[in-house]
Amino acid sequence: MTSSAIIALAAALAVALSTIGPAIGQGITASKAMESIARQPEAAGNIRSSMIIAMALMEALTIYGLLIAFMLVAKV
Amino acid sequence: MTSSAIIALAAALAVALSTIGPAIGQGITASKAMESIARQPEAAGNIRSSMIIAMALMEALTIYGLLIAFMLVAKV
Amino acid sequence: MTSSAIIALAAALAVALSTIGPAIGQGITASKAMESIARQPEAAGNIRSSMIIAMALMEALTIYGLLIAFMLVAKV
Amino acid sequence: MTSSAIIALAAALAVALSTIGPAIGQGITASKAMESIARQPEAAGNIRSSMIIAMALMEALTIYGLLIAFMLVAKV
Amino acid sequence: MTSSAIIALAAALAVALSTIGPAIGQGITASKAMESIARQPEAAGNIRSSMIIAMALMEALTIYGLLIAFMLVAKV
Amino acid sequence: MTSSAIIALAAALAVALSTIGPAIGQGITASKAMESIARQPEAAGNIRSSMIIAMALMEALTIYGLLIAFMLVAKV
Amino acid sequence: MTSSAIIALAAALAVALSTIGPAIGQGITASKAMESIARQPEAAGNIRSSMIIAMALMEALTIYGLLIAFMLVAKV
Amino acid sequence: MTSSAIIALAAALAVALSTIGPAIGQGITASKAMESIARQPEAAGNIRSSMIIAMALMEALTIYGLLIAFMLVAKV
Amino acid sequence: MTSSAIIALAAALAVALSTIGPAIGQGITASKAMESIARQPEAAGNIRSSMIIAMALMEALTIYGLLIAFMLVAKV
Amino acid sequence: MTSSAIIALAAALAVALSTIGPAIGQGITASKAMESIARQPEAAGNIRSSMIIAMALMEALTIYGLLIAFMLVAKV
Amino acid sequence: MTSSAIIALAAALAVALSTIGPAIGQGITASKAMESIARQPEAAGNIRSSMIIAMALMEALTIYGLLIAFMLVAKV
Amino acid sequence: MTSSAIIALAAALAVALSTIGPAIGQGITASKAMESIARQPEAAGNIRSSMIIAMALMEALTIYGLLIAFMLVAKV
Amino acid sequence: MTSSAIIALAAALAVALSTIGPAIGQGITASKAMESIARQPEAAGNIRSSMIIAMALMEALTIYGLLIAFMLVAKV
Amino acid sequence: MTSSAIIALAAALAVALSTIGPAIGQGITASKAMESIARQPEAAGNIRSSMIIAMALMEALTIYGLLIAFMLVAKV
Repeated sequence: MTSSAIIALAAALAVALSTIGPAIGQGITASKAMESIARQPEAAGNIRSSMIIAMALMEALTIYGLLIAFMLVAKV
Repeated sequence: MTSSAIIALAAALAVALSTIGPAIGQGITASKAMESIARQPEAAGNIRSSMIIAMALMEALTIYGLLIAFMLVAKV
Repeated sequence: MTSSAIIALAAALAVALSTIGPAIGQGITASKAMESIARQPEAAGNIRSSMIIAMALMEALTIYGLLIAFMLVAKV
Repeated sequence: MTSSAIIALAAALAVALSTIGPAIGQGITASKAMESIARQPEAAGNIRSSMIIAMALMEALTIYGLLIAFMLVAKV
Repeated sequence: MTSSAIIALAAALAVALSTIGPAIGQGITASKAMESIARQPEAAGNIRSSMIIAMALMEALTIYGLLIAFMLVAKV
Repeated sequence: MTSSAIIALAAALAVALSTIGPAIGQGITASKAMESIARQPEAAGNIRSSMIIAMALMEALTIYGLLIAFMLVAKV
Repeated sequence: MTSSAIIALAAALAVALSTIGPAIGQGITASKAMESIARQPEAAGNIRSSMIIAMALMEALTIYGLLIAFMLVAKV
Repeated sequence: MTSSAIIALAAALAVALSTIGPAIGQGITASKAMESIARQPEAAGNIRSSMIIAMALMEALTIYGLLIAFMLVAKV
Repeated sequence: MTSSAIIALAAALAVALSTIGPAIGQGITASKAMESIARQPEAAGNIRSSMIIAMALMEALTIYGLLIAFMLVAKV
Repeated sequence: MTSSAIIALAAALAVALSTIGPAIGQGITASKAMESIARQPEAAGNIRSSMIIAMALMEALTIYGLLIAFMLVAKV
Repeated sequence: MTSSAIIALAAALAVALSTIGPAIGQGITASKAMESIARQPEAAGNIRSSMIIAMALMEALTIYGLLIAFMLVAKV
Repeated sequence: MTSSAIIALAAALAVALSTIGPAIGQGITASKAMESIARQPEAAGNIRSSMIIAMALMEALTIYGLLIAFMLVAKV
Repeated sequence: MTSSAIIALAAALAVALSTIGPAIGQGITASKAMESIARQPEAAGNIRSSMIIAMALMEALTIYGLLIAFMLVAKV
Repeated sequence: MTSSAIIALAAALAVALSTIGPAIGQGITASKAMESIARQPEAAGNIRSSMIIAMALMEALTIYGLLIAFMLVAKV
């Protein structure tokens, strides 16, 4: 039964480590977006749509990790 | 019984490591949002709604980890 | 009995690691909030309410870890 | 008897790791609070009350860790 | 059965570690892109197309890791 | 007898790791307090009382760790 | 069968660790490129071609890691 | 006899890790104190007394660690 | 067969760790090169040729690691 | 005989880890002291005496570690 | 056969760890060289020859590691 | 004979880890000393004597580690 | 034969870890030297000779590590 | 024979870890020395002699490590 325990650990690491990078990346992006809106309020539309594209791309990275995690949890 | 102990450890790591990145990301985002409101009070509505979108996206990352953790706790 | 020891370790890590990120995030947020109040005292209401929203979201991240910790302690 | 030793280790880690984040967060908060009071002495009341709210929220994070530690020490 | 557990761990690490670098890189890129749009709104088209090229190149790096992860999951 | 050795290790870690965060936090706080007194000598009373409140809150964090350490040393 | 598990782990590490450096390098490069385009829009052609050369050289580094990973996966 | 060796290791770690944080904290405090005296020589009395209070509080943190170390050395 | 697994791990580490340093170095170099071109467009030829020399020297470092990796893969 | 080897290791770590923090702290202190003397040569007496007090307090931290190390070496 | 596997690991680490430092050092050097050429184009000859001397000295450091790696690979 | 090998390792760590902190501390001190001499050449005597006092205090920290190392080497 | 494998690992670490510090140190030195030549071209002779002295001293540190590595390789 | 292998590892670590700190310290010192010469060419004699004193003190730290390494190599 040790094998399924290690697979559980793998699933946990897959999702947990996958959140660290994207979260920090999104934080940097979002913070700069807000700073830019404050500095140039008339470019807000342009900036916010860029922010959503960028954050979606980063959210996808975590989804990849979650995908592997689900595949592994199914094998525990 | 060792197997369920390792699964418990996996659940703990899944939720604990998932909070580090998003929390730091949210901290960066929120701090910049407040700085921006102070600098440009008339853009506060625009900034705060952006902040809530961004923080919700990051909160979601931790929820993914919590989800895996619940699934693993159910197997301890 | 080794199994319950590892579960105890898991509970400890779940709550302990969950405090690191949110605490740092809250620290960054709160420090910027105070700096912003000092720079723009008339926007204090707006800033403080944003600060409370942001810190509550981050406090929630630790609560998720505490939740898993309680569930695990119950199994020691 | 090895099991109770590991539980003791868990209790120690629960409280020790729980102090690192909040302490740094409180340090950042308190240092900015003092800087802000020096820059804007007339906003001192506003700033100090914000500082106490923020530090209490962070103190709570360590208390969560202490709580788990007490529960584990009772099982050593 | 230990062998398939280690392969699962490998798959998890392949995708999880592959997200850290690209996510941070994308975060840096996107944050600068938004800052640049705010500073030079008339160069927004030029900047955004550069941002998409750069982020696609970095997204590809994670896809490489995901590819290896899928190949490994198939062997668990 | 190995069990009491591990408990001793736990006590040592409980107090040692508990000093790192608060000490750094207190250092940041105290350094800013002195800088603020130098910049605004007439607000010294206000700043020093804030500094003592903040440092006491952080000193408490280490005391929590020391408390657990004493409880564990009693079991060695 | 343990041997092929370790080889799988090696393949995973080969590709995963190979993405960290290049991704961060590309992020730094791309962010500066966009900043430079915003500051000197008339040099955009010169800058973008330099950016593509530089990013291609860094993408190559990850490809080396992927190459070794494929060679190892073939042996699992 | 292994047990007393581990207790010796615990004593060593208790005092050694307890010096890292306070020393860095004291260094930050003392360096700022000297900078402040140079900038505002007439506030030197006020600053130096604050510095001594702060450094004493941090010295105490190491003393806590030393205390545990002595209690453990007595058991080797 | 364990021996060939460790050799595979060695090959993976040889190429993976060899990419981290050069990639970061190349990133720093390329980012500064683009910044310099933007600041001094008439020195672009001089700068770009320097950049290619420098990046080639760093690319060589990874090639050394790849070389050892190939030699080791041949022995798996 | 293994026991005395571990005690030797403990003594080595006690003194070695105890030098890291104080040395860095003293370096920060001394560097600021010299910068302050250069900026305000007439306050040199005041600054140098503060520097000696501060460095003595930090030197004491290493002496605590050395003390434990001597006590442990006597038991090898 | 385990022995030759460890030697292979040693060879891999010898070359891989030897690239990290020099690559970062070369990156810092090259980036500053390009910045300096952009600021003082008439000193370009002097700067570039210095850059080549410095980078050659750092390239040599990696060659030392490669040398040991070749000597070890010959023994696998 | 394993025991004397561990003692040798302890001696090596005692001296090696003891050089890291003081060397960095001395580097910071010496660099600031030279900067200060360049800024205030007439205070050079005052600064250099302070630098020698400070560096001697830090050199002493490594000597403590060397002392323990010699005592341990004598027991190998 | 395990013994000679560990000695090979020791030789690899001796040379590899010895390159990290000096390479970074040389990088910092060389980058500042080039910046200084660009700022003060008439002091180039003075600066470059200082740079060569300093880099030779640092190159020597790696040579010490290489020396030990050769002595150890001879014993594999 | 395992014992002499561990002693070899100790010798390697003694010299390798001893180079990291001093090299970085020397790098910081030398870089500031060159910057200072460029800013104040007439104080070059004073600065360079200080630099040689400081670097000699740091070189000595590595020599201590080398000394222990030679003593240990003689016992392999």
